[in-house]
Amino acid sequence: MGPHPAVAAIRLAVRRVLHDVLTDLAERPAPVRGGAGRGALLPAPGAGSPPLVLVACSGGADSMALASALAFEAPKLGIRAGGVTIDHGLQPGSDLRAAEVATRMAALGLDPVEAVTVRVGREGGPEAAARDARYAALDDAANRFGAAAVLLGHTRDDQAETVLLGLARGSGIRSLSGMPEVSAGPGGHGAPGRTHRYRRPFLQVDRQTARKACMVQSLPVWDDPHNIDPAYTRSRLRHEGLPALEKALGKGVVEALARTAQLSRDDADALDAWAAEAEAGVRDDDGRLECAKLYALPPAVRRRVLRRAVVAAGSPAGSLFARHIEEVDRLITGWRGQGAINLPGRVEARRQGGRLVIRQG
Amino acid sequence: MGPHPAVAAIRLAVRRVLHDVLTDLAERPAPVRGGAGRGALLPAPGAGSPPLVLVACSGGADSMALASALAFEAPKLGIRAGGVTIDHGLQPGSDLRAAEVATRMAALGLDPVEAVTVRVGREGGPEAAARDARYAALDDAANRFGAAAVLLGHTRDDQAETVLLGLARGSGIRSLSGMPEVSAGPGGHGAPGRTHRYRRPFLQVDRQTARKACMVQSLPVWDDPHNIDPAYTRSRLRHEGLPALEKALGKGVVEALARTAQLSRDDADALDAWAAEAEAGVRDDDGRLECAKLYALPPAVRRRVLRRAVVAAGSPAGSLFARHIEEVDRLITGWRGQGAINLPGRVEARRQGGRLVIRQG
Repeated sequence: MGPHPAVAAIRLAVRRVLHDVLTDLAERPAPVRGGAGRGALLPAPGAGSPPLVLVACSGGADSMALASALAFEAPKLGIRAGGVTIDHGLQPGSDLRAAEVATRMAALGLDPVEAVTVRVGREGGPEAAARDARYAALDDAANRFGAAAVLLGHTRDDQAETVLLGLARGSGIRSLSGMPEVSAGPGGHGAPGRTHRYRRPFLQVDRQTARKACMVQSLPVWDDPHNIDPAYTRSRLRHEGLPALEKALGKGVVEALARTAQLSRDDADALDAWAAEAEAGVRDDDGRLECAKLYALPPAVRRRVLRRAVVAAGSPAGSLFARHIEEVDRLITGWRGQGAINLPGRVEARRQGGRLVIRQG
Repeated sequence: MGPHPAVAAIRLAVRRVLHDVLTDLAERPAPVRGGAGRGALLPAPGAGSPPLVLVACSGGADSMALASALAFEAPKLGIRAGGVTIDHGLQPGSDLRAAEVATRMAALGLDPVEAVTVRVGREGGPEAAARDARYAALDDAANRFGAAAVLLGHTRDDQAETVLLGLARGSGIRSLSGMPEVSAGPGGHGAPGRTHRYRRPFLQVDRQTARKACMVQSLPVWDDPHNIDPAYTRSRLRHEGLPALEKALGKGVVEALARTAQLSRDDADALDAWAAEAEAGVRDDDGRLECAKLYALPPAVRRRVLRRAVVAAGSPAGSLFARHIEEVDRLITGWRGQGAINLPGRVEARRQGGRLVIRQG
């Protein structure tokens, strides 16, 4: 008798990702280990000490299911499986809970296992600050252990929520593209051996399946009270917004949102690549943007070229909204002698003699 | 004392669109009138009989506000203003109501005014069938009267609902792009003088403003019972889905959705243009699609090229979903000798000797 379908589903999802990790290790140059520069991760299993994959586990159903599937699948592929749990220190007794989650991971056979306490700042609001602290700790753990990958338990439902949160920003298809299956994590872009550090095996798995898999494996799970706290936008979305949307539009909404994320990501990547290529062609010999050439570009490409130029001039990408770029765009498409446009980061854009001048004041 | 802000807002929106209509008339070749071939609409006002703009009016607040603003603004620009109301014949007494709406439009000073009875079929469900019958009647009226444009009363709230309906299909950014500000209407693409027939002046105006404008002008409005009938998806979305989403994400959701529509439309247009251009480059001398060249395209462009090819082979665009194209795409990106893919409209796609063969069976 095989495993319960829910358990089979989570194991299959993890197995696929572990295969990708191995393929990736075989193809990429060996990264330097733990900053000590003394050794390298082995490019493929069997050629020395086996690679290590960590799971980031909160003790909730999603990540406990992920931990259990990793513990089951990794040894079969010659991979070591470890786990990290983060104590955000935001609730009384969170240290005890983190220790308990670590014990549960060890009971699954994960090794090494670690509970890390972080200090959550205030920048960007409570959710963003907690996330930043969490990724910094996961990065640090991955570096210390020389991990080939860190698995995150985000499900298809989390992805649907992320798409809706992006939709509420109204800033275009990049913000609709949700969480990537593979990423470097915040700040890890371009770092050697890190571009594929974080992986989300459950983006096609729904929350119900993860919960069911824990139940049939008799894994105790912990429900984060933040997840049902209506002070959090995501929690309101999860418990009120998305169910109401499902009631209006049908049960396929979560799947549709997750598919939208994937399609939007590919579309945004293609248009970004086009804009990067187009940018060179619209500059004059002195590197200034020529309005006539910008005008000839499709609006979607032109706006991306303008955004790149504004960010390059020092405007922080996170503070730059669609309406800012629209205003700059009107210097090209609706020119009637308007003055300089003020942009975040003390950057200003003005039109001068058929050229667009964008600089920090 | 100027008009109430709500009235000022709807008039400004209509004035802008009427300016666009005049610009457009001055630029485009004079269309043949009413199919009779006997005369031509005048290319600009003042050079003979003035151009006519019609409003499509259900008697609801949005289109009554639109009718009132058109009646006020058109004469100032040398434009004649007329109105059409459609009796769908779906409710008892709908003929009397249509006659009353026509009377109200005439009272606003619109001339000509017409109530048209249509027969609603069944194809595509009740909402699609009613829409098809309505546009056919509007097209017919516009042709008979030689109208330069037909104004539609869709508001920013309608646009937000349309984006969410598109999101629920999960078929990519084209379905997120909502309703266009300017369009040819169903079936009018490529018809001479018709590509800009339908215009939606209120896509940036919210429903509340339209309602307020009717109230302060003492215009009686009629609430379509379909709009609050929970049997209709759009009605459920309007009265339950969207309010719940606003509660979770904040009041800016409607505006964010409307902005998403505009950005997605531009993005989809740019990518479609890229795909059209790329398609020629990936065919061999016999016009067959070369898998190696397809593989080299960005995924977003490749999937659009594949979609074009499948539609060109006879698959109905409306039945072709993202998952169909994903399966065809795997013949390129995940080739392991799989057989022919069956697609809607008895079209099949198979890989043969490094070429993709797509044809109707």
